[in-house]
Amino acid sequence: MQKVNVAEKFGLISKFYDPKIVGEINESYVKLAKLKGDFPWHTHVDEDEMFFVIEGELLLKFRDGDVVLAPGEFMVVPKGVEHMPSAGDEVHVLFIEPKSTVNTGADVNERTLVDLEWV
Amino acid sequence: MQKVNVAEKFGLISKFYDPKIVGEINESYVKLAKLKGDFPWHTHVDEDEMFFVIEGELLLKFRDGDVVLAPGEFMVVPKGVEHMPSAGDEVHVLFIEPKSTVNTGADVNERTLVDLEWV
Repeated sequence: MQKVNVAEKFGLISKFYDPKIVGEINESYVKLAKLKGDFPWHTHVDEDEMFFVIEGELLLKFRDGDVVLAPGEFMVVPKGVEHMPSAGDEVHVLFIEPKSTVNTGADVNERTLVDLEWV
Repeated sequence: MQKVNVAEKFGLISKFYDPKIVGEINESYVKLAKLKGDFPWHTHVDEDEMFFVIEGELLLKFRDGDVVLAPGEFMVVPKGVEHMPSAGDEVHVLFIEPKSTVNTGADVNERTLVDLEWV
């Protein structure tokens, strides 16, 4: 049981769209990721997903419109809602999502990650 | 489904130790609270609780030592671990905890809150 300094942990992450686990709350993980560029459209069938922006601006695309998240802003994407994260410049995001969550949702493709590591 | 600006929401909270719900992720709530002064020692028997400090410094007391959380730092207090939040000056904290979580844990006293509101 120890505290986590989010900026320090981001300093240990080098690749984009490569989330690392930094905490565990009940059945969920707290994850950090640096994003830059687009990520494929996807849907999490069973899991709500929280995006909390720490640094930079994140564009979240939905089929019915876009949302821009600035630092200190968050959004919960409910299960079943198709979305596409897009980052023109580097964005630092804290995620909270059930341990069962796969980054590409119901799709499996070359961006799919398994066995995420702690950092 | 809409984004939440944490600073704006804090602007709507006037009392200390009066958490408000600002989001819902799976079986958990995202809550915001302004803290100042001490809160009674308590234990959440079944729920891990995440404290993420947005502004100010939070002292988390444990039976075997204290932890100070600064802005951008978080800590997950695992279920069953007795703790006491203490804030010398005003602190703004974002919490993530299961919907079942009661602020005073297994104890019911004059600080116990029921029926938390959204803000």
